[in-house]
Amino acid sequence: MAIAYPHFIGSQKSAMETGMISSPSSSSPSRPPVILTQDELKKIAAYKAVEYVESGMVLGLGTGSTAKHAVDRIGELLRQGKLKNIVGIPTSKMTHEQAVSLGIPLSDLDSYPILDLAIDGADEVDPYLNLVKGRGGSLLREKMVEGACKKFVVIVDESKLVNYLGGSGLAMPVEIVPFCWKFTAQRLQMLFEESGCVAKLRTYQNGEPFVTDNMNYIVDLYFKREIGDLKVASDAILRLAGVVEHGMFIDMATTLIVAGECGVIVKDKWDSASHRSILASWQSIDTPVGEFEVSPRIFCQAHI
Amino acid sequence: MAIAYPHFIGSQKSAMETGMISSPSSSSPSRPPVILTQDELKKIAAYKAVEYVESGMVLGLGTGSTAKHAVDRIGELLRQGKLKNIVGIPTSKMTHEQAVSLGIPLSDLDSYPILDLAIDGADEVDPYLNLVKGRGGSLLREKMVEGACKKFVVIVDESKLVNYLGGSGLAMPVEIVPFCWKFTAQRLQMLFEESGCVAKLRTYQNGEPFVTDNMNYIVDLYFKREIGDLKVASDAILRLAGVVEHGMFIDMATTLIVAGECGVIVKDKWDSASHRSILASWQSIDTPVGEFEVSPRIFCQAHI
Repeated sequence: MAIAYPHFIGSQKSAMETGMISSPSSSSPSRPPVILTQDELKKIAAYKAVEYVESGMVLGLGTGSTAKHAVDRIGELLRQGKLKNIVGIPTSKMTHEQAVSLGIPLSDLDSYPILDLAIDGADEVDPYLNLVKGRGGSLLREKMVEGACKKFVVIVDESKLVNYLGGSGLAMPVEIVPFCWKFTAQRLQMLFEESGCVAKLRTYQNGEPFVTDNMNYIVDLYFKREIGDLKVASDAILRLAGVVEHGMFIDMATTLIVAGECGVIVKDKWDSASHRSILASWQSIDTPVGEFEVSPRIFCQAHI
Repeated sequence: MAIAYPHFIGSQKSAMETGMISSPSSSSPSRPPVILTQDELKKIAAYKAVEYVESGMVLGLGTGSTAKHAVDRIGELLRQGKLKNIVGIPTSKMTHEQAVSLGIPLSDLDSYPILDLAIDGADEVDPYLNLVKGRGGSLLREKMVEGACKKFVVIVDESKLVNYLGGSGLAMPVEIVPFCWKFTAQRLQMLFEESGCVAKLRTYQNGEPFVTDNMNYIVDLYFKREIGDLKVASDAILRLAGVVEHGMFIDMATTLIVAGECGVIVKDKWDSASHRSILASWQSIDTPVGEFEVSPRIFCQAHI
């Protein structure tokens, strides 16, 4: 994805470092827009999130293409001496390796059962800051770590905003034990029959099952329609013997940072005014089922 | 445990084969009582349960010292030609090996997602036929298989009867992922703080963690007091990221077979008259917390 990003002209590096991005209206109409890739938007959101990090914090380090930028940035600030005494709790073996290579001191939940802050990406974000995570396969460790944080900052580019979880038409992952996985996948599909659910085992390119850090499999659920009350759906999934965890992160995120066409948007979970407006904008979008795309313009109008 | 069992005098083998055991009043007062061990009581219950097996059935084969007798008996009846065309679905690697050695044809849930009948033991049975299972470590596969059965017959000796789950003072097992197991164990203990819960990692004699068939760990929960509504407790446990499954089998058993001092008791889940009487007898027992023991005599008076 590449979108016009007029307010980065001549100051992209500075903007990413400070997170201070001017609004579209302040950019000069005479200058051509800078085209930013989806990865650059992710980086902007990640850098903004790292502004929440303070020396001495115990930090949950997320996994995935967006979180990777945040971990890189934390490593950079440590090297520069701008951050000190950080303890990182990685959410995957991959992030563990990345953090080690950056010299970030690491520990685990057994030693630090309460974390100050976690920063991670998400695959979908609904207007209530409920998330789908786990398309990278690390949903269980992410949920353990991020469920133990005082503050959980989610960083996404605007393509991840949805009206309802599952609304992107992409996968909602469920981690299951390998034992009789077909049986469990079938029961998951039946559970959401009314939402037109299709359950597929995640595989590598060679057709072998994808295996998580916990030696389990992932079944990806695809929905044609909304699945209704998320907490009811969550409990129903968890009650299936064979299920280890699912990728819905309900009521966990405390702050959302979105980088998009209109700049960086920061939304706190309990900011009720912002919440109402974000809801209004999301819900006003008339989108065909299965072809959902949030209009960044509508989103921006409501929140910047 | 060894208890007096007067009505097996001279006919123990026959009684076990048929499950037809006379009541205490019909035994001759002049004959000395036969002392049966706990294992012999388990065998009696198991043989009675196998009477429910019919040729052509798909059978869930349980795990543990009581279920082992049932699997042995099924193998024996197959060899004798009294049962034919049985397909067994084992609930553990151990039961799989036992069934193979007995020549019982085996398959799995992927091929047979609906089973006719499962027979398995339990560590505790409450008056509503809710169970604690998994002290042998196979709770996940047992729950998957037994949750897919039209009929689930539970076989126990009378020492397994409790007023409420956890009431034996012995373990209620929870299967968890090895990743940060101390953190998960701590959260489980905190969840049931009001019930005086103590959580302990299950280990082998050499101190190494016990590993399940699914390569997970077991945390055993010990309660000093009742944990309240079981369904609420179940959901609370399952919502903890890191938990795979717990050992409470709620509303799953359809029939209970108990072998004890008074003979064999068969109780169906939906036999409301029996249910009321079993409840009355269980609930009338005045038992100190942590030292619970069901009186088989009171139990028998109500149900034989």
